[in-house]
Amino acid sequence: MSSGDMYSGYIGKLIEELEKLPGIGNKSAERLAFHIIGLPKERVEKLSTALTEAKAHIRCCSKCCTLTDREICSVCSDEERDQSTIMVVENTRDLAAYEKTGKYKGVYHVLHGAISPMLGIGPQDIKLKELIIRLQGDVKEVIIATNSSLEGEATAMYIGKLIKPTGIKVTRIASGVPVGGDLEYIDEVTLLRALDGRIEI
Amino acid sequence: MSSGDMYSGYIGKLIEELEKLPGIGNKSAERLAFHIIGLPKERVEKLSTALTEAKAHIRCCSKCCTLTDREICSVCSDEERDQSTIMVVENTRDLAAYEKTGKYKGVYHVLHGAISPMLGIGPQDIKLKELIIRLQGDVKEVIIATNSSLEGEATAMYIGKLIKPTGIKVTRIASGVPVGGDLEYIDEVTLLRALDGRIEI
Repeated sequence: MSSGDMYSGYIGKLIEELEKLPGIGNKSAERLAFHIIGLPKERVEKLSTALTEAKAHIRCCSKCCTLTDREICSVCSDEERDQSTIMVVENTRDLAAYEKTGKYKGVYHVLHGAISPMLGIGPQDIKLKELIIRLQGDVKEVIIATNSSLEGEATAMYIGKLIKPTGIKVTRIASGVPVGGDLEYIDEVTLLRALDGRIEI
Repeated sequence: MSSGDMYSGYIGKLIEELEKLPGIGNKSAERLAFHIIGLPKERVEKLSTALTEAKAHIRCCSKCCTLTDREICSVCSDEERDQSTIMVVENTRDLAAYEKTGKYKGVYHVLHGAISPMLGIGPQDIKLKELIIRLQGDVKEVIIATNSSLEGEATAMYIGKLIKPTGIKVTRIASGVPVGGDLEYIDEVTLLRALDGRIEI
């Protein structure tokens, strides 16, 4: 029984909708629902409007495919960014993670997923065609920054093979021990990867 | 920096609103926002409507003060329930917890909080006056089912002292070792409470 059923009408419906969100179980949905009912009316309306407006206005940047509310996102339209260096990421959150560092001066390409034969996601299901089209412009380097997961690695390999023949430089972000990481707690695969990727100091 | 700042306009605003909810941090708000943007438009509208409608239609039951969308809640208006037995709980979720058992046949009174000198919540800040008014009717027993916390106990004691002189029977739900609980993992206060509350078998 969904815990939404316990409550009459509108409370139940709200709990039911909240429960459908990822990472929000029965109890959390109940707690959230009662918290929301206790909020001032303006706050609830702000949240409700934020939901529909985000859905209505968010689209893919026509250059890099990141989620944005403009035709071309703020990174792609920034003339100070190096448009000839493209970092390929799986999603907009990964892009944001690199943007938070404030150090990367190139642009991005957002795939909206990774190749996963297990989940039936092939190259045609992610924004790969859009990347290939961009390569016809003036591109010097493609940095593949897909996740260090099975799918991320497979995607990186696939893109690498695809781009190699064009002569454009393709790189992969390093994988190894996280900064501040304690070797003792790091898994073996990462340890071996860090060893393989060792550089002279 | 709120992670809402990282994202442009509508995404940022949505993340910001989600972050304000209890138990939802930076990362969860980001994850939820991108999940929501990826949902079909109808789903987002359903969630958004559920929010505003719950807020607009939910009110306190004019008898027991529980949150409901009717003038008198489904429990209070159920003629098969024993209206002369009132269980006092802190909030609507606690009421729902007892309703889930399906065994309690009396009615409730929802305080919407507990007395807490620490937080500056006094007897006048919870729905206590409303309970006292109900006692002028035909009431045989008041079962105090506030939480087994400091505030819940203080509230139970306060209500007990208040009702005693009227001659109405006042009881407190038992506290002790939870069913299935392993003594080894139960705190000392609960163990002593269980000992004090022992009954002959």
